[in-house]
Amino acid sequence: MVKPYERKINYYETDKMGIVHHSNFVRYMEETRLYYMEKQGIPYESIEKQGLLIPVIGIEVKYKKAIHFGDTIVIQQWIKKMSSIKFSVFYEMRDKETGILYATAHSEHCFVDENLKPVRFKKEYPDLYENFALAALEDKAELEKNRE
Amino acid sequence: MVKPYERKINYYETDKMGIVHHSNFVRYMEETRLYYMEKQGIPYESIEKQGLLIPVIGIEVKYKKAIHFGDTIVIQQWIKKMSSIKFSVFYEMRDKETGILYATAHSEHCFVDENLKPVRFKKEYPDLYENFALAALEDKAELEKNRE
Amino acid sequence: MVKPYERKINYYETDKMGIVHHSNFVRYMEETRLYYMEKQGIPYESIEKQGLLIPVIGIEVKYKKAIHFGDTIVIQQWIKKMSSIKFSVFYEMRDKETGILYATAHSEHCFVDENLKPVRFKKEYPDLYENFALAALEDKAELEKNRE
Amino acid sequence: MVKPYERKINYYETDKMGIVHHSNFVRYMEETRLYYMEKQGIPYESIEKQGLLIPVIGIEVKYKKAIHFGDTIVIQQWIKKMSSIKFSVFYEMRDKETGILYATAHSEHCFVDENLKPVRFKKEYPDLYENFALAALEDKAELEKNRE
Repeated sequence: MVKPYERKINYYETDKMGIVHHSNFVRYMEETRLYYMEKQGIPYESIEKQGLLIPVIGIEVKYKKAIHFGDTIVIQQWIKKMSSIKFSVFYEMRDKETGILYATAHSEHCFVDENLKPVRFKKEYPDLYENFALAALEDKAELEKNRE
Repeated sequence: MVKPYERKINYYETDKMGIVHHSNFVRYMEETRLYYMEKQGIPYESIEKQGLLIPVIGIEVKYKKAIHFGDTIVIQQWIKKMSSIKFSVFYEMRDKETGILYATAHSEHCFVDENLKPVRFKKEYPDLYENFALAALEDKAELEKNRE
Repeated sequence: MVKPYERKINYYETDKMGIVHHSNFVRYMEETRLYYMEKQGIPYESIEKQGLLIPVIGIEVKYKKAIHFGDTIVIQQWIKKMSSIKFSVFYEMRDKETGILYATAHSEHCFVDENLKPVRFKKEYPDLYENFALAALEDKAELEKNRE
Repeated sequence: MVKPYERKINYYETDKMGIVHHSNFVRYMEETRLYYMEKQGIPYESIEKQGLLIPVIGIEVKYKKAIHFGDTIVIQQWIKKMSSIKFSVFYEMRDKETGILYATAHSEHCFVDENLKPVRFKKEYPDLYENFALAALEDKAELEKNRE
């Protein structure tokens, strides 16, 4: 089990409303994905070195509560709906101290080569696919355990 | 009818994939909203001066095609589902020259005061509400016309 | 003579102080450079297509006055100290309406290839060099005229 | 002695050159300042709660080497030239593993109230002033020790 991603808010991420600008949540999601990949032994740098890119094809964020400068957020992610060409990730952002839910989110991804052409991930990168599928399975097991 | 929002891509908005980073689409959506509000005679500055803020409570983006440095994008928006306390906006981002669809998106908003407490918009800001409702009606009419 | 670069402030460029975050000035400088290059017939896209990159090797910004959301800024630039391998650019950011000086700045640049190796610009890209040198001369003439 | 500020590069901080966009160095400098203030027992949040703001009035960055995604940077800072109304900070950014120097930088700051009016820091905030002056002294001592 990977420890959730944790990070402090940077001053430059706030806007004149006095809270974190909503676009930054999308960046926190990316940080979380890359953190998890690294912890699971598949750092994104190593994937790019194999000529593979994993662009975002969809995002959705539901903002529940404003985040302020000085807050520390904790983000958990679970891989969901892993297929041979796509996968999606679900996120929960909470306050480190209070546990308050800041946002839920999800992102969808596919696999492309350096010319941004789709790649049949499972077939062309079987080892990498297995790593992803394994992580997805673990995430599923954990989610089910949490639900009990 | 407001002319669609148009803007060039900034170099610093690209990432090492060589394309616009996906988080910037969320910023382009904000630019578009504020542009439309200004064109419809309700600039956001004037709204903030009345002590009203319009935070984002949800976003969704579907990425269709990568945007590159050098491209000029054209973004249209339509207000949808206007209620007395919330509204949502739908966006279409296209290439200025080719018309290619880069992304569709939507955002949801509510109204709060300077302490981020919800405001019953229709009741407390009847004039502003009318402006919004009118813009929403125009957008609806236009969408229906396009569909024919 | 190229018309100065003009742009409105985006909401997401403000921070919780209620003003434009200082890091964005550096981005406005880049926007200005690329705008001028395009207007002078040497768009940066065309330069990159020749395998040439122009990284920033130094910047300096002096902040005179806070910029607010709703302001429109006008930025002028002048190429200074053009050599066969380097050049520097000087900037003045003012308010469009009041002419108030927001900041002065300068940036230094060199020329590298796609592997970030230095390129002897004047020797290897004589045509491009001439364009730059010409723009620098025009800028110098204009600055001297202004001074009179 | 405060441990230097350390941070990994985020993917969204790169640009199409494949390296960290130069504007982000200015943001790393801010992160470093706020980190040091917190470690020295004067978190910026507590300063803002007293109605005091510390805007940036000048920055300078000298870029020595490109930073890539996957790198971890280590940033040290030293307060220099502390006066009763201003101070400046000097920065060194290095690679965590190799020690390679990525950039040197400096920033200048003053003290203002919430309406951005200058504040005579030493006179109006004597306790806070002492904290800053002490930190500056420590930094000076350390720099001199390093030089020996």
